[in-house]
Amino acid sequence: MSAQTITREEAVGPYFVGVDVGGTSIKIGIVDDLGRTLAYTSFPTEGEKDTADAIRRTTQVIHGLLATAGLERSEILGVGLGTPGPMDIKRGFILDPTNIPGWRHYPIRDRLAEAVGKPVTYANDANAAAYGEYWVGTGRNYPSLVMITLGTGVGGGIIIGDLSVEGENSHGSEIGHIAVDYGPDARMCPCGQPGHLEAYASATAVIARTTEQLQAGRASSLQAVLAQEQKLTGLQISQAAEAGDDLALEVILTTADYLARGIVILMHTIDPGAIVLGGAMNFGGSDHPVGKQFLDRVKQGVDRHAFPLLAQRIAIDFASLGGDAGYIGAAGLARAAQKPPTP
Amino acid sequence: MSAQTITREEAVGPYFVGVDVGGTSIKIGIVDDLGRTLAYTSFPTEGEKDTADAIRRTTQVIHGLLATAGLERSEILGVGLGTPGPMDIKRGFILDPTNIPGWRHYPIRDRLAEAVGKPVTYANDANAAAYGEYWVGTGRNYPSLVMITLGTGVGGGIIIGDLSVEGENSHGSEIGHIAVDYGPDARMCPCGQPGHLEAYASATAVIARTTEQLQAGRASSLQAVLAQEQKLTGLQISQAAEAGDDLALEVILTTADYLARGIVILMHTIDPGAIVLGGAMNFGGSDHPVGKQFLDRVKQGVDRHAFPLLAQRIAIDFASLGGDAGYIGAAGLARAAQKPPTP
Repeated sequence: MSAQTITREEAVGPYFVGVDVGGTSIKIGIVDDLGRTLAYTSFPTEGEKDTADAIRRTTQVIHGLLATAGLERSEILGVGLGTPGPMDIKRGFILDPTNIPGWRHYPIRDRLAEAVGKPVTYANDANAAAYGEYWVGTGRNYPSLVMITLGTGVGGGIIIGDLSVEGENSHGSEIGHIAVDYGPDARMCPCGQPGHLEAYASATAVIARTTEQLQAGRASSLQAVLAQEQKLTGLQISQAAEAGDDLALEVILTTADYLARGIVILMHTIDPGAIVLGGAMNFGGSDHPVGKQFLDRVKQGVDRHAFPLLAQRIAIDFASLGGDAGYIGAAGLARAAQKPPTP
Repeated sequence: MSAQTITREEAVGPYFVGVDVGGTSIKIGIVDDLGRTLAYTSFPTEGEKDTADAIRRTTQVIHGLLATAGLERSEILGVGLGTPGPMDIKRGFILDPTNIPGWRHYPIRDRLAEAVGKPVTYANDANAAAYGEYWVGTGRNYPSLVMITLGTGVGGGIIIGDLSVEGENSHGSEIGHIAVDYGPDARMCPCGQPGHLEAYASATAVIARTTEQLQAGRASSLQAVLAQEQKLTGLQISQAAEAGDDLALEVILTTADYLARGIVILMHTIDPGAIVLGGAMNFGGSDHPVGKQFLDRVKQGVDRHAFPLLAQRIAIDFASLGGDAGYIGAAGLARAAQKPPTP
């Protein structure tokens, strides 16, 4: 998704820079005080290269975007930086992210602050995306939200007022690692523990669960796809479900059931105003028949198992900022860090 | 437990009043700016009577305590009030607490504020107790904590900095209602849902689980107790375990296993500095052999199932304020509400 931008004349200062580091690309945007983007670009992460290279390039790109937006450096109050974990948020270190092998134990927050000459607020990428949805996305009308990101893995962010729950050890909001199955056949999570939500609801898990059923001989239009391509994609499963394939739909709806288990736990511990479902694995979103069935099934699970008052009041919907949520949220966290909290 | 009090000379102002309403008694203390008690008393709740009576009596008692402590009304900055739920914290209403039948849909916060002439901060009783432990109890050296209260039911409080997670609908921190068993034989929680922590780890649940094993013919010294008294107590189970009864110890250690499941979920979502176990069902606490075995078994479960870094860093211990945590924490929340948040 490319960001919708506003002009300098429409914008309301002060301004913030958001930087969203992912395994494949680094997204950077200049965001106004209302969370709207003035200028945006992205470039490949080249994660095998040195982190210092990325800091230099990021700094150059920020200067370029400022020129594009028609802003002076002095009009930028702060920079928000989101990266994947593991990380040490308090000390500002990225530790050893799986998909960015060249970046290890690097004081990324302070190096970026030195290069740009602005204070940098450092956050987990999933928490930053959650803050973006909270600030100007699906959660914008709610005082708190939990975002669950269904992608290659399952990530999340918990936002309560202006607080992003990052945890004492930078492991807050690790929603993919809530256990949703304690049975003897619970699926193994990539983290090594059984039964975690990520082992059921990530794209990887949905593909694995479908493939296992196919290998067990289950009739499905996907048998031919698997035979031909050796390997399924989430999109193929979603399309098969739309075309009426029973197995594909069953796997998707079972995914919703496990997701509802995690959501109910979050409702009983955080009691947020909204649950926002982000990430690529949205089955087309709520405008799409499969996405709508998925969302409805999640809500049915919540209705059945959450406190009735909460089930009645909670808003559950797909995210609305797409790939922009991360840098917008990072900018928003920089803004929240600059402003004195409201009493 | 009766509060340890300090003198007016030792105390550091400003001062706060904490009121902790329970099913059997109302506890009231005057607390200084460091969380120390200057004067304390309690009286029966008489929950069948009108709430207005209780407000009048509470106000009289507060004035009496001020005289005892040698304080002027003007030295009190605010009052903290904790009550059981269900409640509407934002509107300041107690709704329909199970154990206080005379108190229903009553604007308790504003009525108390009018009667005392001070601002009243309203909180769930379990969250207030958690804040007490965070402020001056077991959690005092940690920037965040989760308290789990094991009593007749299982309650809890999540404190992150000065934020008590009360939720949008006053149902935050309902830790007893985290699911820890999704199996077909999961135990039913009093709330009507299967598999919740409360259905395994409350005193009621521990007694029920033991009694079921006895009724199934399991050999145990408790068979004689049950035959004679028809009904067990938590203390009898704890004493049987200490005396070497296998069944009693097994039930207690299995309780720890279920508790660890809930704690691991809280570690992966909140990542707090400490987990504090409160409530009457502490098996004698960590100075007692059974309490120590219980705590060790909780820690073993956490070591096995939480992220290793978090398992290594988390502090897990029993609460230290006993029955004083509620009013001290309520006073602390009143204090936090009066002070501008630190940036």
